[in-house]
Amino acid sequence: MAGETAGAEQVDHARLVVSGDDRAGIVAAVSGLITELGGNIVALHQASSDRSGGRFFQRTVFYLPELARRRDEVADAIERRIVGGLGMQARLVDAGERKRVAIFASKSDHCLLDLLWRQRRGEIEMTVPLVISNHPDLGDDVRGFGIPFVHVPVGGDKAAAEAEHLRLLDGQVDLVVLARYMQILSGDFLERVGVPVINIHHSFLPAFVGANPYQRAKERGVKLIGATAHYVTEDLDEGPIIEQDVVRASHEDTVADLRRKGAGVERSVLSRAVTWHCQDRVFRDGNSTVVL
Amino acid sequence: MAGETAGAEQVDHARLVVSGDDRAGIVAAVSGLITELGGNIVALHQASSDRSGGRFFQRTVFYLPELARRRDEVADAIERRIVGGLGMQARLVDAGERKRVAIFASKSDHCLLDLLWRQRRGEIEMTVPLVISNHPDLGDDVRGFGIPFVHVPVGGDKAAAEAEHLRLLDGQVDLVVLARYMQILSGDFLERVGVPVINIHHSFLPAFVGANPYQRAKERGVKLIGATAHYVTEDLDEGPIIEQDVVRASHEDTVADLRRKGAGVERSVLSRAVTWHCQDRVFRDGNSTVVL
Amino acid sequence: MAGETAGAEQVDHARLVVSGDDRAGIVAAVSGLITELGGNIVALHQASSDRSGGRFFQRTVFYLPELARRRDEVADAIERRIVGGLGMQARLVDAGERKRVAIFASKSDHCLLDLLWRQRRGEIEMTVPLVISNHPDLGDDVRGFGIPFVHVPVGGDKAAAEAEHLRLLDGQVDLVVLARYMQILSGDFLERVGVPVINIHHSFLPAFVGANPYQRAKERGVKLIGATAHYVTEDLDEGPIIEQDVVRASHEDTVADLRRKGAGVERSVLSRAVTWHCQDRVFRDGNSTVVL
Amino acid sequence: MAGETAGAEQVDHARLVVSGDDRAGIVAAVSGLITELGGNIVALHQASSDRSGGRFFQRTVFYLPELARRRDEVADAIERRIVGGLGMQARLVDAGERKRVAIFASKSDHCLLDLLWRQRRGEIEMTVPLVISNHPDLGDDVRGFGIPFVHVPVGGDKAAAEAEHLRLLDGQVDLVVLARYMQILSGDFLERVGVPVINIHHSFLPAFVGANPYQRAKERGVKLIGATAHYVTEDLDEGPIIEQDVVRASHEDTVADLRRKGAGVERSVLSRAVTWHCQDRVFRDGNSTVVL
Repeated sequence: MAGETAGAEQVDHARLVVSGDDRAGIVAAVSGLITELGGNIVALHQASSDRSGGRFFQRTVFYLPELARRRDEVADAIERRIVGGLGMQARLVDAGERKRVAIFASKSDHCLLDLLWRQRRGEIEMTVPLVISNHPDLGDDVRGFGIPFVHVPVGGDKAAAEAEHLRLLDGQVDLVVLARYMQILSGDFLERVGVPVINIHHSFLPAFVGANPYQRAKERGVKLIGATAHYVTEDLDEGPIIEQDVVRASHEDTVADLRRKGAGVERSVLSRAVTWHCQDRVFRDGNSTVVL
Repeated sequence: MAGETAGAEQVDHARLVVSGDDRAGIVAAVSGLITELGGNIVALHQASSDRSGGRFFQRTVFYLPELARRRDEVADAIERRIVGGLGMQARLVDAGERKRVAIFASKSDHCLLDLLWRQRRGEIEMTVPLVISNHPDLGDDVRGFGIPFVHVPVGGDKAAAEAEHLRLLDGQVDLVVLARYMQILSGDFLERVGVPVINIHHSFLPAFVGANPYQRAKERGVKLIGATAHYVTEDLDEGPIIEQDVVRASHEDTVADLRRKGAGVERSVLSRAVTWHCQDRVFRDGNSTVVL
Repeated sequence: MAGETAGAEQVDHARLVVSGDDRAGIVAAVSGLITELGGNIVALHQASSDRSGGRFFQRTVFYLPELARRRDEVADAIERRIVGGLGMQARLVDAGERKRVAIFASKSDHCLLDLLWRQRRGEIEMTVPLVISNHPDLGDDVRGFGIPFVHVPVGGDKAAAEAEHLRLLDGQVDLVVLARYMQILSGDFLERVGVPVINIHHSFLPAFVGANPYQRAKERGVKLIGATAHYVTEDLDEGPIIEQDVVRASHEDTVADLRRKGAGVERSVLSRAVTWHCQDRVFRDGNSTVVL
Repeated sequence: MAGETAGAEQVDHARLVVSGDDRAGIVAAVSGLITELGGNIVALHQASSDRSGGRFFQRTVFYLPELARRRDEVADAIERRIVGGLGMQARLVDAGERKRVAIFASKSDHCLLDLLWRQRRGEIEMTVPLVISNHPDLGDDVRGFGIPFVHVPVGGDKAAAEAEHLRLLDGQVDLVVLARYMQILSGDFLERVGVPVINIHHSFLPAFVGANPYQRAKERGVKLIGATAHYVTEDLDEGPIIEQDVVRASHEDTVADLRRKGAGVERSVLSRAVTWHCQDRVFRDGNSTVVL
């Protein structure tokens, strides 16, 4: 999961993302097509969810001279041969194209700042058109990165806030990231926003589902604490897991210590999940993910 | 958590293990007493469960020439000054004395063999008077270590099997270790056995409490799998956690792969927990542990 | 790196391992050929050492009904199309075929026993025709696994010992594993043995090249100690690294503690390296490796 | 290594840091003295470098009502009883007192920003009176935290630059941190600066001592890359190691990938080292450290 982030090297590089029911001949069909078109495969990763009759996933990065000029031709060929001919789903992505990501935050800065900082360094292939928060606290930090900050209070009227969110996001973003945003999104919002939503949960799911995981981790006396980045679904804390990690804890740690240690895990887990999503590496497979 | 296992170096070394309600002056009283008696403190670890009015735990290793000869005198002084004077619980252990540990197993060999092998190497300060199993399969392996293997089938009559267990263990052991023993012990057994019981659970508790954790981990799509060593209480999978660890998993892992990877974590987590228990490092603090 | 070890599932499965100078069309040619032959690709991993003009490596697992009967036909097609047509090196391996592995040991048991135990569990796809040692100490352990143990003392006459090694190994093995074998093999032996040799070095190479790494780790005050599995070349401790790992150390650890902690890392690192080699996942790329 | 960072809780708390030749009775003397003075020991950690005749280190945190008013009395008692009476070195630190830390940086922002961000969150008990850099690039970032940024170019005249550094630091700081400062400090500077200097080296020392460690890690084909925080001495990359960590690498990682992954390890390793130093947990023991 490396080696593909540098900007200038990505000219004339594309990603072809294919998924669908597993069947013989998909790798050959995809790689044959790319070769026929005059492309050169730079990286190919594939997976099957099951040995017999499961789902199939493939991510292929290829170099094709004059890709921009020939894009329609390539897309047509994929549509005809891979989608039509094999019944697979396929998506062609220009490797130099950055995902547009809206970040939602509340008062905690650690996940938000890590994402913005990695975006600025060019580590995550995204642009951030705006940051939305239900508190004004992090405005200066965000604006310091030259990124618009919109304060949308969520008081008694959650529906009104969500309507405002949808208005702000409409057509502007490819992904929403909840960077310790302390509000639950409604099923209606998730349906209407029309793009994937990634959340960071401050525990090693499915342990400590729900509120106050660090408090409960302390009470249960666990020796590791963790964090989980997952796609958001209507079932709270039950969406497909993208990435998880843990850090060692001990009896010496107070709840505040666990929260502080956890913050370090949260930010790195979320940053990895967003990085991989923006590289088109993450496939949903039922309620789990395949990361290629 | 190191530096104290070598046999010959432990002559004339003792461990004084103290716990009770936290109050001022305990460290001074204990260390003052050891100094008065002519001992030299080799290692001292202590912890409080809370800044104000919690529980206090201290483990002190000290060197005292001619310890064996003076043992009663030392024990009396501790009883008088630490137990009587300060109202603490105190236990004096000869550092050269090995705990007697009965191991229960079923058909899986990984945890059992790792414990026996570490015992043979001298890494765990224990002797193993016997291994009890509800299946005969591991008999040859155990006898290969020169250790008695007793097959106690647990068919329809669990009470009879537990009665046999109690008869075999009576007065012979200081600890029981369940090394992937696939039977639930009754509350009655736990009460009557009279020594601590350590179990290895094949998940990162409290995730996947109960049966088939690897199957459920696969279904949930977690990216790490783990294992948990804990003291056994009547509440299944709810006892105080001694040690936990995890290993990375991915979509490529089948349930069988998770089970195999998990076996590696299980054996190392259980071996660490037993090692620490045998070094008198583990204190129960309500439903969690302090490992000093 | 999973999902392919179960025995019965591997009937009619083969691995095609391809390497050579990178050029366009290799993935398409290999996958096209397998599809033409009526095979179904189960897993495909590939890598290039460089974006432009480097080396290319591909490991493809495929299912082909009646593979045994059609093996020659398949091998011929590969020879003609991949080797002849594309100028690549190619190797076809029956996935059910186990590598024959000779293990060399001295007095330390931890790496040896872990390999034998994993072989017995079916975790490593190998048979062990014999264990060779320059000391008799581990004979009983090895014979307990039903494996021949040959004691070849290496006194003053190393050349004689190596001649005996070559006589014992001649035509019998596909791999030699040095499981903490405390003798340096001559360049002449390495040349004549004709199969790869894997060694476990008890440090995180290139730190502490040479003798007594744990002593030197203690002196340098490192906070992590490690182990390195690598292919043996004439340049001691300089061969291509297959796998490495580390464990945390502290001022509390004596040299003996480091040695004990290190043993845990050594055995797991070596077992992983041997497992991957036996699954044909490891490619040499100059003085480093590609593990697919 | 936790539980002691919260500000308000530290009123009337002090740390007593003792080191010297090991001898019987030190723990008793220190804890007895604190008890006599009416203090209550909150945490006590100690270590000996050797079982017989080595160095001894102890860090004791205690609560003493009206500490500020009684500070001279306490300091006098320590001087008389611990320094005079036992010949140990001793240092009394008010737990609420923050170390004054100057950070040196060049163009890389990751270590610098992580330190400033943790300082702002209150995770590191330090103030940062100034940041000094040989490049102007990071000025805006630093000033955004409300911290003075001083650009001291190091062109041909290193002696002049170091004179300017000494002038800026004189009496203002308790610690200097080199946060990827790409200049070697002269022995003369180290002697005259009069406070400890912590550096982050971008490799797992002693592997890849010197320049370009990521390039050399790629060439050597290591499977883990790391970082090392150490006190700076005149012998480059040879000073006492405070903390180290690693992250997994593979053949897929380019040198740029290693550099990016390494940046994550560098910032967390340096932040931990500075946190522990500021908590008075780190003792030099010859050319290694004891972290209590």
